[in-house]
Amino acid sequence: MTTIHDDPEDFAEDQLAGWTALYADRVRAVHGGVVTLPTADADPQVAVVVGGGSGHYPAFCGVVGPGFATGAVVGNVFTSPSTAQVYAVAKAADQGRGVVLTFGNYAGDVMNFGIAAERLNAEGIPTRVVVVTDDVASADEPSQRRGIAGDFSVFKAMGAAAAAGASLDEVERVGNAANAATRTIGVAFSGCTMPGGGEPLFTVPEGHLGLGLGIHGEPGIEDVPLLPARELATLLVERLLTERPGSTTRVAPILNGLGDTKYEELFLLWGRVLPLLTEAGLEVVEPEVGELVTSLDMGGCSLTLQWLDDELERYWRADAYTPAYRKVAAPVAALVAADAVEDAAAEATEVPDATTASRQAAATARAAFDAVDALLREHEEELGRIDAVAGDGDHGRGMVKGSGAARRAVERLDREAGVAFVLGRAGDAWAEFAGGTSGVLWGAALEAFGRSLRDDRDEYRPADVVDAAQAFADAIVHLGRAARGDKTLLDALLPFVDALREGVDAGQDTATAWRAAAAVAVAEAAATADLRPRVGRARPLAEKSIGTPDAGATSMGLILTRVGEVLAARADRQEGTHA
Amino acid sequence: MTTIHDDPEDFAEDQLAGWTALYADRVRAVHGGVVTLPTADADPQVAVVVGGGSGHYPAFCGVVGPGFATGAVVGNVFTSPSTAQVYAVAKAADQGRGVVLTFGNYAGDVMNFGIAAERLNAEGIPTRVVVVTDDVASADEPSQRRGIAGDFSVFKAMGAAAAAGASLDEVERVGNAANAATRTIGVAFSGCTMPGGGEPLFTVPEGHLGLGLGIHGEPGIEDVPLLPARELATLLVERLLTERPGSTTRVAPILNGLGDTKYEELFLLWGRVLPLLTEAGLEVVEPEVGELVTSLDMGGCSLTLQWLDDELERYWRADAYTPAYRKVAAPVAALVAADAVEDAAAEATEVPDATTASRQAAATARAAFDAVDALLREHEEELGRIDAVAGDGDHGRGMVKGSGAARRAVERLDREAGVAFVLGRAGDAWAEFAGGTSGVLWGAALEAFGRSLRDDRDEYRPADVVDAAQAFADAIVHLGRAARGDKTLLDALLPFVDALREGVDAGQDTATAWRAAAAVAVAEAAATADLRPRVGRARPLAEKSIGTPDAGATSMGLILTRVGEVLAARADRQEGTHA
Repeated sequence: MTTIHDDPEDFAEDQLAGWTALYADRVRAVHGGVVTLPTADADPQVAVVVGGGSGHYPAFCGVVGPGFATGAVVGNVFTSPSTAQVYAVAKAADQGRGVVLTFGNYAGDVMNFGIAAERLNAEGIPTRVVVVTDDVASADEPSQRRGIAGDFSVFKAMGAAAAAGASLDEVERVGNAANAATRTIGVAFSGCTMPGGGEPLFTVPEGHLGLGLGIHGEPGIEDVPLLPARELATLLVERLLTERPGSTTRVAPILNGLGDTKYEELFLLWGRVLPLLTEAGLEVVEPEVGELVTSLDMGGCSLTLQWLDDELERYWRADAYTPAYRKVAAPVAALVAADAVEDAAAEATEVPDATTASRQAAATARAAFDAVDALLREHEEELGRIDAVAGDGDHGRGMVKGSGAARRAVERLDREAGVAFVLGRAGDAWAEFAGGTSGVLWGAALEAFGRSLRDDRDEYRPADVVDAAQAFADAIVHLGRAARGDKTLLDALLPFVDALREGVDAGQDTATAWRAAAAVAVAEAAATADLRPRVGRARPLAEKSIGTPDAGATSMGLILTRVGEVLAARADRQEGTHA
Repeated sequence: MTTIHDDPEDFAEDQLAGWTALYADRVRAVHGGVVTLPTADADPQVAVVVGGGSGHYPAFCGVVGPGFATGAVVGNVFTSPSTAQVYAVAKAADQGRGVVLTFGNYAGDVMNFGIAAERLNAEGIPTRVVVVTDDVASADEPSQRRGIAGDFSVFKAMGAAAAAGASLDEVERVGNAANAATRTIGVAFSGCTMPGGGEPLFTVPEGHLGLGLGIHGEPGIEDVPLLPARELATLLVERLLTERPGSTTRVAPILNGLGDTKYEELFLLWGRVLPLLTEAGLEVVEPEVGELVTSLDMGGCSLTLQWLDDELERYWRADAYTPAYRKVAAPVAALVAADAVEDAAAEATEVPDATTASRQAAATARAAFDAVDALLREHEEELGRIDAVAGDGDHGRGMVKGSGAARRAVERLDREAGVAFVLGRAGDAWAEFAGGTSGVLWGAALEAFGRSLRDDRDEYRPADVVDAAQAFADAIVHLGRAARGDKTLLDALLPFVDALREGVDAGQDTATAWRAAAAVAVAEAAATADLRPRVGRARPLAEKSIGTPDAGATSMGLILTRVGEVLAARADRQEGTHA
């Protein structure tokens, strides 16, 4: 939707007034458009006057400035400017070295810019016309094609040539050479809506893309079903490669968004396009990915290739500084090359030293992660069902994703790693893959458990495990800002820690105390059914949740129980070994 | 719609891979995000690490570069990055002078960046956290507010301070000061769609805007009916002025688009916002209008004001050169000030000298425009009806707009103006306001008619009028690329010119020959009913048009007839005067 306007009839004029107010430090408004303020002390240059209808920003006024266009004629939305507008902007832009009028190949523009050129020439202002015809989908015969995103590439070449002091003949020649070297293919996903309009100007059938559809909804080649990004990239690149002019192997690409198709989508597509260009033996020169020639809120994109010779490459790389397009080589040239930067990441993967006891404890942790991962897979559906009563039902899924990631992270680690390091990595992986608050809490708690145990102990006494369990719980209390009775996993965990401490204080070994404490946790988890949630996932549906236990407390009880079984089994085995 | 992707699960990762390939000359990818390549020979600086979920480009990786952020942590779409991601990016960004982690105030980000900061500090990398809380709609208590477009303003202040060599303490202080000075209010018009999703994440009721709605669809203050741009500007500005901190009168505004709301709409709105800020006594410093913090394809916008003291103003104005945000003062500073540029337009309105005969002919032309304008108003509906049979039905409306504009343009001119000048201006106005091809053709033809008559003749003989009529027809043939028999206005006009010439050659006076020729034109216009259109508006519906005359030929016949009546009346009056 085009939503912001006052009288829709005045949209083009109003938006231009806002734009010229915004950039009053670098452009001035004239009848029919804008011209750049000249650079002080610079020699006069050939004026490059671009233009067309409004609704295509940054085309056309967005590229007025040093190194690019001298002026832009701004028509009504999707409508050619009038002859008088072209004439007035050209007169204002002229610096005494002649004018090139340049625009996409549409009947109205050809007529109005053409008549203005005749009039300017008749008045003694030497004026040339360069028409852009880059859209390969619009006609077989190149001269009949319309101009779309390739406008940008052709205008830039002429703007750079003019800024470099080229004569009128030269700028015209460069423009025609740039146009002959520039090809675009576009696709549309959805139409655009005119200011004040309730319905889109045109539509693309649901689930389809319009191959070659024009930037005002002009018919394309065909409607094809929507494609994954990889196939879309192939479609665009292959079509352009069939139109390859000459034998140059350097290209300046533009992957252009039409409005509703956003940056992230374009970057993703660029990640598919780039290897195809490289595999075709092409050298990619300073690609542009973003919105350069839009159509209000139309969905879609286009790929442009300008095939570069040395001259066009020089103009493509040249600096330009306009409201919408700013290219300055110096700050990038001053950067250290990527391959000269040390990779700090390598250092981070070094495994710190650990004692034998710590490595044995790490082995127990590995076994526990295997067991817990299997446990959670068994209970995924049940946990989801409990969570769905008053939550979004994703608890089982999130726990499986977290525990699976932790298990895989631990498997990949060196067997020399100690328990603190292993639990830290497991926690990172759990947090990263489980998603949501519960994932972060579990991740931080595992890391805290490991940090408390340390890698440098020669022995892990039951009291050390109590301290670690306390650190585990503290991390969750600290981060989750909840307390007992809030109907969260703490209602199982905190009684567990208390019971564990009591058992150990009473002289029990770790496994025995843990198993007894886990039984307490399971009972307390069940008892959360009577509670009313005060924080966390179930709060919005507090009433509905009464009668159902908290999903996080339930999974906590299950996990603590299973870990107790692992501890007991390993204690038995070690006893067996020693026996 | 978010349409371009492969496996939607991999969207965030895939788009980041494409982005880092695109900007491999200035950033490097690390686990969890990107860091800038350092500037060679620059002193180490405090690392400013920004971040949050994907889907907000240019936030957050788009602002990584000299003068702005040192690194960006890139989470999944609309999801906090994990602790491990934050940790890894911060480690890679650290240049030995400490790290500031900065992000918008969301629970997941607060947790993950907070844990990472603890870990970095524990490892001896001094790390601070600056949380952005600019959204005035999200809570009454400032510290509880979430971060939206003001992220950009706060990050920029810290990036500029760090680039200027400030210490960790200083950068943290500047960040908190910038956040305390920054306020944003946003509105949403429509929801956004996640990659692979068929339905929007949230919706705004049809015809309404969500005042204060968050950038992921978090609830706002209320839904209000859509407003005209003027009222929307008032709403935004007034809300921010109630939140004015301190007594500074300088502001750095950002008018930010969320995705589907396009540049032209933002420029238009800026044209309404700027005077309100000025009227409030505020000095506006280098405003930014565009997409800086988006939400995929969400419709909506926000206004941010950062209230500047000298220090914040210096950092706001400072150069920065990042993939998505490039600000370099030098090229703009080198421009000639707008008030020093001569206004070439003044010259163009000078009326050239004209003979008495030319001025008399101009008076006839004025009378003709009055008469034709009245005639076309009478026939507007009928011409529209004829055109609607096989066209879009706008011929009557377009002719009335053109003739009305021509009449008004002619009325405004000095009575000293000659016929060539008057017809030239009338033609410009007709072309500019009538719109469409027919408007351009009429405009160019009127100008050609005047040019042929000239302003320097002492007498206009009937043969001169024949030549002018021929020039009128030639202009249309040349521009319209049509011929007789194509079912266009030429089917009335060309027989008219032939008949006019025959009459004048046979010794008739202008008015007599014109009226006889006009009768031929009317008959030929009627005869176009039998033709099948070959060019122009009626071609797509060629079959349907048979049996109905061409609308353009019909209006041509009517106009030529009425002009003939004006010529005859003026000839009679002149005879009367002489008698």
